[in-house]
Amino acid sequence: MAGEQGTGRAFADIMRLAEQVEPGQPGWTRRVFSPEYRSSRALVAELMGGAGLTVTQDAAGNLIGKLPSDRPEAPALVLGSHTDTVLGGGRFDGMAGVAAAIEVARRLRERGQPLARPLWVVDFLGEEPNAFGISCVGSRAVAGALTREHLGLEGPDGRTLADALGEHGADPERIAEARWASGVVGSYLELHVEQGPRLERAGVGLGVVTAIAGIHRAEIRLVGRADHAGTTPMGQRRDALLAAAEVCLALEAIGSRDESGVATVGHLVLEPNSANVVPELVTLVAEYRSSDPNWLTESDRQLVEMISEAPSRRGVQGAMSWLSQEPPTACSADLMRLLTRAVGQLGEEPLALSSGAGHDAVQIASLCPVGMLFVPSRDGRSHCPEEWTEPDQVELGVRALEAAALELLSGGPNGEWA
Amino acid sequence: MAGEQGTGRAFADIMRLAEQVEPGQPGWTRRVFSPEYRSSRALVAELMGGAGLTVTQDAAGNLIGKLPSDRPEAPALVLGSHTDTVLGGGRFDGMAGVAAAIEVARRLRERGQPLARPLWVVDFLGEEPNAFGISCVGSRAVAGALTREHLGLEGPDGRTLADALGEHGADPERIAEARWASGVVGSYLELHVEQGPRLERAGVGLGVVTAIAGIHRAEIRLVGRADHAGTTPMGQRRDALLAAAEVCLALEAIGSRDESGVATVGHLVLEPNSANVVPELVTLVAEYRSSDPNWLTESDRQLVEMISEAPSRRGVQGAMSWLSQEPPTACSADLMRLLTRAVGQLGEEPLALSSGAGHDAVQIASLCPVGMLFVPSRDGRSHCPEEWTEPDQVELGVRALEAAALELLSGGPNGEWA
Repeated sequence: MAGEQGTGRAFADIMRLAEQVEPGQPGWTRRVFSPEYRSSRALVAELMGGAGLTVTQDAAGNLIGKLPSDRPEAPALVLGSHTDTVLGGGRFDGMAGVAAAIEVARRLRERGQPLARPLWVVDFLGEEPNAFGISCVGSRAVAGALTREHLGLEGPDGRTLADALGEHGADPERIAEARWASGVVGSYLELHVEQGPRLERAGVGLGVVTAIAGIHRAEIRLVGRADHAGTTPMGQRRDALLAAAEVCLALEAIGSRDESGVATVGHLVLEPNSANVVPELVTLVAEYRSSDPNWLTESDRQLVEMISEAPSRRGVQGAMSWLSQEPPTACSADLMRLLTRAVGQLGEEPLALSSGAGHDAVQIASLCPVGMLFVPSRDGRSHCPEEWTEPDQVELGVRALEAAALELLSGGPNGEWA
Repeated sequence: MAGEQGTGRAFADIMRLAEQVEPGQPGWTRRVFSPEYRSSRALVAELMGGAGLTVTQDAAGNLIGKLPSDRPEAPALVLGSHTDTVLGGGRFDGMAGVAAAIEVARRLRERGQPLARPLWVVDFLGEEPNAFGISCVGSRAVAGALTREHLGLEGPDGRTLADALGEHGADPERIAEARWASGVVGSYLELHVEQGPRLERAGVGLGVVTAIAGIHRAEIRLVGRADHAGTTPMGQRRDALLAAAEVCLALEAIGSRDESGVATVGHLVLEPNSANVVPELVTLVAEYRSSDPNWLTESDRQLVEMISEAPSRRGVQGAMSWLSQEPPTACSADLMRLLTRAVGQLGEEPLALSSGAGHDAVQIASLCPVGMLFVPSRDGRSHCPEEWTEPDQVELGVRALEAAALELLSGGPNGEWA
């Protein structure tokens, strides 16, 4: 079998990428715009080139490697993911998808496979949330959704996203040129680690993604009153932290009312944050996610009602502003069937499951049908140093992605992918 | 009346001190070791000198102004407080006591009052909690309780408390010389703003303090697990922030079980503090205060029990370490009677009340009897920019302090203060 000759190469590439991390940071940190991210992408370009891909970096900083087709006008098949990490992240989230895509290209070229359409392998710039407050920078740009407002976002040091892009070798002035014109791309497939425990628990090696969760995120400000912690009687306090504690527990209840979604407070900051002062101000970010739009709507309603009532019982003023209300993204039914067939060719039965995490595929879904393939995450862990997928699990993913790509690059069983 | 000729001078001195604040900081910030604190103490020394006091700075950075007596060997009467503030603090906490003490000395000298014992007016260095993690630096030193370990405490920038003292013009190598020898001081009186609402609510202008609350403070670490906030089902999380929310609310219940004390979580820090990561670690400081030792003991028991049980129900590991367990300080019954008489001479009836805040008097209580006089705080506010005491309330406090000092400096009605 052709796949067997490349066994382990994608995993080895993941390990090579993992050598380029930010010094002094926890885990396998390689954040977008860090020097280590920049140098790691020279390695990605080298790997792409070694696989026979012609590599360019677009105006948004995306690395794009192309294998040509005899039908250059046919809509391209795009395989992609990202290679940046969160602070204290792991080695697989994003990197597994890029390494798998490169390996698929490598195998196709090694076999001299004729392509019924161009194949693009893309390492999208900065998928993880960054210091400028947005995620999916590169995939937004190709989808034409990276706006002037986004480019003007300021980071903690006062630089804008445009400044950071410029310093990173991208060209924010010509960002519009990064946009993929209508009809240029035909299908998008992304392999990714599950980042949750369902594949492992089911004892299944591959998952076909049905939908990517929508994310609703709100900043909640709770304004109480700073008082001396030793002299202010308990009944006369307006303690913003106690109000926040109730908000966190109420949000947990909203997220736990059924299995359709999750809710989290991951960010919370206190002022003045002195042991002997009653907390005056708490700013927190409430987030919930679901692939069910009705669940999100009902959560919105419950959150708004809770914030308008609970804090005021403590004399604390609650205010809420939406940071994002992204709807769920449905994966293409055709590509789900294609991926299921591809997995079946390997003698496996995939698990159909939704993705709680956001992905570059969400942005690309505005351009063409998208499909996603999940490989297992040990203990369901992700966004942490313990993130792990076994080499044979990566290999199985590569083979499934290869089989699916092969079908699309052959023109599809009935030519319906043309 | 002698007092009338100096009416408003103490208040004017408080306002002059309030002009020296750290630029760019909220409220009336003048923290120990800041350049503005240092320059403000030149003003304090000038005010002391103008009142006829002979001013020195001791090895611990305390400013001490002395009025001589014909009986130089008699134990001194000490009037004191402090002039540093918390971040975002007000204009009265500490400063009212120093200004009142200077004004009392000024009036005694203007009247040519013969003194049966020396009078010392002290501006103790750094009473508020500082970047080195301790409070009452100067008063600890005169009580012989500023240890080598304290001097070696490091601030956020790696400097030690000894370094900071040295740069501030004190002499940490000779800190032992700052200690007041046994018998040198006979009584300590401190005027302070109440920092709570009880005087205002009772419509009473002056309070005589019965005891200063003991403070028990514990650092609590809650260790959960960092997981992806989008992909980890609610039932499989070990969320340190939700455990912390329960700890905060349980501590509130401990502090609210009766009127004998208060409990606060004023400091809380979250890691990794990212909106899309389930919180892994929360570090918080739990504090409670009471002038009832039994209440503190029972609170200790409830806190320890709660930390050993509540977090583990969420798979979160709770650990606790004591930062301080200071017992309550009783004020001298003799000095309480003296202060009550002094207030009565002004035609007022004082409120007897305990202090929830710590004071330099706690340290001085190991050297001699201590007494405290409270003036009202508007709306009970303190440690905030809104901190306010009316000029006539300050004046009433000055006159009560003056009357009490006069009795002590006359040798006491039956000579019992000698």
